[in-house]
Amino acid sequence: MGEPYERVWTVRFSDTDPFGIAHYPRIVDALHETSDMFMQEIGFPFWEISQERGFGLPLVEMNFEFERPVEAGDDVTVELTPSLGTRSVRFEYVARCDGEVAFSGYEQRVCAHQGGDGSMDLPDDLREAMEPYADD
Amino acid sequence: MGEPYERVWTVRFSDTDPFGIAHYPRIVDALHETSDMFMQEIGFPFWEISQERGFGLPLVEMNFEFERPVEAGDDVTVELTPSLGTRSVRFEYVARCDGEVAFSGYEQRVCAHQGGDGSMDLPDDLREAMEPYADD
Amino acid sequence: MGEPYERVWTVRFSDTDPFGIAHYPRIVDALHETSDMFMQEIGFPFWEISQERGFGLPLVEMNFEFERPVEAGDDVTVELTPSLGTRSVRFEYVARCDGEVAFSGYEQRVCAHQGGDGSMDLPDDLREAMEPYADD
Amino acid sequence: MGEPYERVWTVRFSDTDPFGIAHYPRIVDALHETSDMFMQEIGFPFWEISQERGFGLPLVEMNFEFERPVEAGDDVTVELTPSLGTRSVRFEYVARCDGEVAFSGYEQRVCAHQGGDGSMDLPDDLREAMEPYADD
Repeated sequence: MGEPYERVWTVRFSDTDPFGIAHYPRIVDALHETSDMFMQEIGFPFWEISQERGFGLPLVEMNFEFERPVEAGDDVTVELTPSLGTRSVRFEYVARCDGEVAFSGYEQRVCAHQGGDGSMDLPDDLREAMEPYADD
Repeated sequence: MGEPYERVWTVRFSDTDPFGIAHYPRIVDALHETSDMFMQEIGFPFWEISQERGFGLPLVEMNFEFERPVEAGDDVTVELTPSLGTRSVRFEYVARCDGEVAFSGYEQRVCAHQGGDGSMDLPDDLREAMEPYADD
Repeated sequence: MGEPYERVWTVRFSDTDPFGIAHYPRIVDALHETSDMFMQEIGFPFWEISQERGFGLPLVEMNFEFERPVEAGDDVTVELTPSLGTRSVRFEYVARCDGEVAFSGYEQRVCAHQGGDGSMDLPDDLREAMEPYADD
Repeated sequence: MGEPYERVWTVRFSDTDPFGIAHYPRIVDALHETSDMFMQEIGFPFWEISQERGFGLPLVEMNFEFERPVEAGDDVTVELTPSLGTRSVRFEYVARCDGEVAFSGYEQRVCAHQGGDGSMDLPDDLREAMEPYADD
């Protein structure tokens, strides 16, 4: 039984639009930052796996739904649950503010050799590092 | 028979990652900029409809697939085709570099009163302004 | 004797360039985020003072020197020291990584009525909230 | 007698804050984009000089003054004038909207070997390419 990875994103004044709500591209920044924080947390930071292990997890698809706007000062709890495939991983996100879902969706990522020569199996140690956070 | 709206996005050095390819959040910036340019082109800039007409086209869903990376200096042709609903519009995107699809997807937008009190029909003049670009 | 406000900025993969170092605009994002965090910390978040108090601290000048590049994964300690004027405040920054200065500089901000009708004295309660962090 | 390099930056809705004016970090993005466009215009794009010539023009200082806010839809004319040193170049910027200066300042850049082993003379061909835009 996994527990999702969780971080709190505080919406900043500089993220907000003329109606006081966060611009969509800034929400996407926060989602990508969450994936980066997760990979660092499990000991496989994006900047290390590419340089030291020769592989990456490039994004092949993203799908997000926006249910409620968020405002400057909001503390948004972003949960990330990895869903493990053989040669891919899906990062599933749910972001809540005051207990209500604000946005949710997923990033589909493949495991690929650096340099673009095709997909590969998720390394066993990466798989093991993600499993405690996975749904099952 | 509509023709999509088209703009060229030149990938900049400051958009690129350690492998020389554009970071995903920077691609999302370019997509949102395209929606903004389109609305300006048809005479309904986002900044005017909200202030002068009291409505907006907030994003409720986005879905993108990334097929090929793009690099600094690439001229990426981004096409936007509006698909018109009664109370919503879907902006469909196809981005090509050297004739090959680099990324594609859509933004689903609803037509909503400013201030969040529910959806409304797309105004007739906005619908007419979008139709020349619509698929049919 | 004040102690500067301090936060740690972790450089992310998505901040970095083809040489693995942070793009300058991403450093500026981190500096602005620091000013926003500071204002929240002292109880005067940017989003509140403008809406509830009718004033702001718009930037009139920024000056930064970049001494050493920072890389993905670096934990950069950013210190902010407010230097208080009568109708203005200067936010002075020093950012260090592994004890070495990476970048430093200042943002000169004026205290201004919202809506652009000129500068005003820093409110006393804001001044008092900043003083514990000020150099003297 | 040089003529500065000039580009028009259209402020987008997604650049603007709750008061309808551009966030400062978005202005810095536009300035950096201008430097990138200039280098491409003169035939020395940032992404080529680093990879093919083994040098770069890293930023060592930036100084900007913000005189008037800019709003979504504003067409901001950004002028760049290179001021040539022996081992450095200063990019001087003046940005105007409706003929009035909105912001201005400079980026001080050094000419450096890629990889960080010190400064070097500006290559002659780069100097020649910049001269037509230089103040004199």
